[in-house]
Amino acid sequence: MADAAVRTSRPATNRRTPAGGAPRAPHSAAEAAEARIDIAAVENMLLGTWADTRRETREAIKDSAFWQVTGQTKEEHRERVLTQLHMLVDIEGSRRAFPAEYGGHDNNGANIAGFEELVLADPSLQIKSGVQWGLFGSAIYQLGTKTHWDRWLPAVISLELPGAFAMTETGHGSDVAAIGTTATYDPDTEEFVINTPFRGAWKDYLGNAALHGKAATVFAQLITGGVNYGVHCFFVPLRDDDGNFLPGIGGEDDGVKGGLNGIDNGRLHFDHVRVPRENLLNRYGDVAPDGSYSSDIASPGRRFFTMLGALVQGRVSLDGAATTASALALKIAVTYGNQRRQFDSGSGTDEVTLLDYGKHQRRLLPLIAQNYAQFFAHDELLTTFDGVFSGRNDTPDERENLETLAAALKPLSTWNALNTIQEAREACGGQGFLAENRLVGLHHDLDVYVTFEGDNNVLLQLVGKRLLADYARQFKGADAAALAKFAVGQTAGKVFRGAGLRQLGQSVADFGSTARSVELGLRAEQQHELLAGRVEQMVADLATALRPASKLAPAEAADLFNQHQAELIEAARAHGELLQWEAFSDGVKAIQDEGTRQVLTWLRDLFGLHLIEKHLAWYLINGRLSAQRAASVSRYIGRLCTRLRPHAQDLVDAYGLAPEHVRAPIASGAEQERQDEAREHYARLKASGDAPTSEKALQKK
Amino acid sequence: MADAAVRTSRPATNRRTPAGGAPRAPHSAAEAAEARIDIAAVENMLLGTWADTRRETREAIKDSAFWQVTGQTKEEHRERVLTQLHMLVDIEGSRRAFPAEYGGHDNNGANIAGFEELVLADPSLQIKSGVQWGLFGSAIYQLGTKTHWDRWLPAVISLELPGAFAMTETGHGSDVAAIGTTATYDPDTEEFVINTPFRGAWKDYLGNAALHGKAATVFAQLITGGVNYGVHCFFVPLRDDDGNFLPGIGGEDDGVKGGLNGIDNGRLHFDHVRVPRENLLNRYGDVAPDGSYSSDIASPGRRFFTMLGALVQGRVSLDGAATTASALALKIAVTYGNQRRQFDSGSGTDEVTLLDYGKHQRRLLPLIAQNYAQFFAHDELLTTFDGVFSGRNDTPDERENLETLAAALKPLSTWNALNTIQEAREACGGQGFLAENRLVGLHHDLDVYVTFEGDNNVLLQLVGKRLLADYARQFKGADAAALAKFAVGQTAGKVFRGAGLRQLGQSVADFGSTARSVELGLRAEQQHELLAGRVEQMVADLATALRPASKLAPAEAADLFNQHQAELIEAARAHGELLQWEAFSDGVKAIQDEGTRQVLTWLRDLFGLHLIEKHLAWYLINGRLSAQRAASVSRYIGRLCTRLRPHAQDLVDAYGLAPEHVRAPIASGAEQERQDEAREHYARLKASGDAPTSEKALQKK
Repeated sequence: MADAAVRTSRPATNRRTPAGGAPRAPHSAAEAAEARIDIAAVENMLLGTWADTRRETREAIKDSAFWQVTGQTKEEHRERVLTQLHMLVDIEGSRRAFPAEYGGHDNNGANIAGFEELVLADPSLQIKSGVQWGLFGSAIYQLGTKTHWDRWLPAVISLELPGAFAMTETGHGSDVAAIGTTATYDPDTEEFVINTPFRGAWKDYLGNAALHGKAATVFAQLITGGVNYGVHCFFVPLRDDDGNFLPGIGGEDDGVKGGLNGIDNGRLHFDHVRVPRENLLNRYGDVAPDGSYSSDIASPGRRFFTMLGALVQGRVSLDGAATTASALALKIAVTYGNQRRQFDSGSGTDEVTLLDYGKHQRRLLPLIAQNYAQFFAHDELLTTFDGVFSGRNDTPDERENLETLAAALKPLSTWNALNTIQEAREACGGQGFLAENRLVGLHHDLDVYVTFEGDNNVLLQLVGKRLLADYARQFKGADAAALAKFAVGQTAGKVFRGAGLRQLGQSVADFGSTARSVELGLRAEQQHELLAGRVEQMVADLATALRPASKLAPAEAADLFNQHQAELIEAARAHGELLQWEAFSDGVKAIQDEGTRQVLTWLRDLFGLHLIEKHLAWYLINGRLSAQRAASVSRYIGRLCTRLRPHAQDLVDAYGLAPEHVRAPIASGAEQERQDEAREHYARLKASGDAPTSEKALQKK
Repeated sequence: MADAAVRTSRPATNRRTPAGGAPRAPHSAAEAAEARIDIAAVENMLLGTWADTRRETREAIKDSAFWQVTGQTKEEHRERVLTQLHMLVDIEGSRRAFPAEYGGHDNNGANIAGFEELVLADPSLQIKSGVQWGLFGSAIYQLGTKTHWDRWLPAVISLELPGAFAMTETGHGSDVAAIGTTATYDPDTEEFVINTPFRGAWKDYLGNAALHGKAATVFAQLITGGVNYGVHCFFVPLRDDDGNFLPGIGGEDDGVKGGLNGIDNGRLHFDHVRVPRENLLNRYGDVAPDGSYSSDIASPGRRFFTMLGALVQGRVSLDGAATTASALALKIAVTYGNQRRQFDSGSGTDEVTLLDYGKHQRRLLPLIAQNYAQFFAHDELLTTFDGVFSGRNDTPDERENLETLAAALKPLSTWNALNTIQEAREACGGQGFLAENRLVGLHHDLDVYVTFEGDNNVLLQLVGKRLLADYARQFKGADAAALAKFAVGQTAGKVFRGAGLRQLGQSVADFGSTARSVELGLRAEQQHELLAGRVEQMVADLATALRPASKLAPAEAADLFNQHQAELIEAARAHGELLQWEAFSDGVKAIQDEGTRQVLTWLRDLFGLHLIEKHLAWYLINGRLSAQRAASVSRYIGRLCTRLRPHAQDLVDAYGLAPEHVRAPIASGAEQERQDEAREHYARLKASGDAPTSEKALQKK
């Protein structure tokens, strides 16, 4: 495998030989003699704002010591990843997020960008780094104060102090506010007593907990003077230097997982473990020696969400890592699809390259479009994150925007990653099932991305509630009649039902028109109108449906809300898709090179049409697309696929992945060699005159 | 884990305590005081025609020696599964398909049913058994003749002769006709020379090839007298008694795979390996000592498909195993969803059981409906298979039906299995990602089911072509004008566009009508009309679109076909869905017990509506549903979910899976214990008067 991995990737575009007859349709942009992307320029765009850091990390992980080895036991894999973490420290990989005072680089955006690229080496490495520096280290830095930084940050950065981030419990994942672990202040000894009252309150799924963690940042209900001030975070030592649990602490290994087995996930429980008062990470709330509680944030709810919000970077980095992992899967599947042949075309010539099949194009090309959209959207998310965490743009509004953006994008990109990797694996057939071709491993490792750092459905529900709150803000103080009047007004508005009705009227004109005129009706502006209008109407419809809740008893109101839960989540998803589409469109607008702009405009259109097709029934039911125009969506996608097919290799080459990042034999030349050898064999046989006659030919005589 | 596994499963229905306040809505049919299924009777229905064999196998695999052990290396896992195969021989598990003359039971249906159940123990065991007896053994039995049976069947059945089924090559999977391996007859020595001419012609992905196979049934192009008579099968010894390759034979291990690592998949190549003339499995074609070829089937194409058709049982058994594996995943997720609580409802009472969430119901209940449909459809498939292979009903038409049915159902059930298992894993959150809870392992192992034994897309394309052929048969001899006239006639026909237009007219009457009247418009008959009408129209539309092909040059005709490839596959999928729906409906019709019939009718309706919702845009575009009626589909699904929610546990309990089959701690009582303990803790704390006041409550004062 190592051999295959260092082979230079030879894109199909430059080496197609007419050995068995020229292909009927162009396979590459070079052959197609038309607009073509500037691959290097697109690579720069996709690498985004922190391109330099990404390139630096990609260069570093060309070292095979960083690569995942398939078939290792979890013990071997965990050891290997721990070693890799030390290697990261050696190349300064752990310093970027931390302040210069502690040897850090004060560069939050670069920090996330660098970590995300590690997914190419081994997702276990990416996530275990995230646990150590992004969660454990960040909790100390973001929730603690100078005393804590002075005491622990240097050892966190150097990995002398590996730690676990003990938030989730077996009984409470997404609902952090309800965790059972308690930290009760004892004014007599000026200590907090950390306690696990029942099995469901064990901390669970924690990286670094099963083996390597010497301490943990433990989230617990802070109780002092008989009052529960809600969830706070405490620094709790776990193990002595020999790796034995300290008194009162116990735990278990989570054992084998569906993936990420290079991480030592485990469980922890605390039997009245005492830590000094100063171990409370006290940035947002503190307890004085006498036990009195104080906080700059009076509202318990707002304080809780502020603390959680300080840890948003996990979600941000998953959005980026999922996008990069999807890119890797597409690079593998498209390269293979451009080399592998299967079945002759029935025209008696040559076997057909997979990517020439209509179905194969339909499977893979919209996923490239979606992946590009995610790259653009992620760069916006990361820029927002960097603005807030650098302090340049740290306002409550911007923090809320950041959290909503992260909660909207992370679910979409992580689910898309699983879909993309699975489609890529199936598109590679049996080869896709071999671990050496990496697709199955990527799926195993990324599986948990959809439920950790906030379950995707729970996150989307948060986004949905934010959308509803924004909507309701328009009617502050307005009574129901005003709301009803507003709703009526919408009917004639620009992007609400009225627009749909107008389009319905136009549908007669569409009928029988040329393909080009139909496409004109589904250009950028219309795509935006359809996508944005859907979000707005879904939110407005939900608001109307939920309005009676304010007059109901709590239980009935909860029931009403629950009846609309699936729609709320769907509205949030629509919002996330719109954000991705807008980011892609903004990216395309900024392109100078004409060929690049043309091809990426097609790709953006494919993304937009792909979204509209996915929700076509909604557009029809709501009168926003006529049946004729709706029917044309699928045909338009077909034409876009035909147009983009010659550019497929360019588009995945623009991910800028080197052979050391791809490492899948089927995408590193092995398949092309096999195809060439087979075709040469048959050509030689034919030339020799020794080829057997086929029975069929014989029967015809 | 073993401990958890033998704990008796205690369904939530019988043990709900009002510890923290009674649930708002019924959680079980017992509470709901309404129609309820007869669980034992439904279990019998789902076990189907060969219920006895299924029960026998399920009893046998209660022995933990048959269970998959997580975290084993592939070497350990392969050894374990080989041992399990010997255990199967000991309990007569390998005899069912073979004739009594060789110690067999002559029972094809029971054989498949028994093998399918093995998926509950370990999918590697199911598939390795399938390789040995279903592929290697079947090739000898179905493609060979008495000489071959006498020589090899007893040792195949007893596992003295483990073998590989060497059909697929690295360069040719689904396109078996184009394999590169040759078997050239040498009349001088009366031997066939088996040869691998290039790397792409290596046999690949073969179970038993890497380690255990002593022989293989090798598919190769039969060449005699300078003529290639197409693919035939040969018995080729591979290894000596010490496990070393015989002269001229070489191979490689396929290494770690995405799953099924208990099987020693590998590659084989042959360097002019000579086998006696008699090693040709000569049921459908033979070569005389002088090299002359003979066959009862004159057409090379028909001969080829007859040989492949003799091996259809692989597809049949995957349909059943995928259905049973999905049932296991649903049993785990629904049981957990009925015990696990998350977030309080906002009404200040208790935390909400997962399955009470609208979204959670929407995620899981339609999957139960789909799974039930698959059980009914699979029993029909297996009955058809048994009819053909027992000889009771072995006509060319019935063989073709069997092959089409298998090709239509296997893709749907294997894809559904991956979706179902993944949704179940996500619905269980972090617990779902732990190997001990089995969902991730099921996904890993079943992943390859969608591309092996015929890639799903390739199989659906075959079905689509068959649908087109059936359609064209109606116009035999008819010219284009007649076809056009027929197409026009359709517009006013019963299940074609006309019906859609009529429904569109009715839509005004729907508007504002009660929910019940809308449901009346989506009852069984309408569901059938919608599902069947879609298949018919899609096929008719395709036929119209492809009609010009007959007048085009082969290359252009191929292009035209390729443009419609995705639609052809979609039509085949619609056909498969219709078959599943019809099988489910036939099953429901046969039910005597009223409660059971009522609940399963709701479930069948949920399946039908779920399919219609999936294709809603199509129904709208084609005028078969009005916008109003289409909008009601989703609401109706919501109501069906509410109705079925109390029956969810009954429905998965009716799978009849014992704790030894489930073996997931979260579905074996551990979660319920944790919930009970936590609630008792808080109740005690409250009663003691020591519970801390919440800061929020304090602030209100």
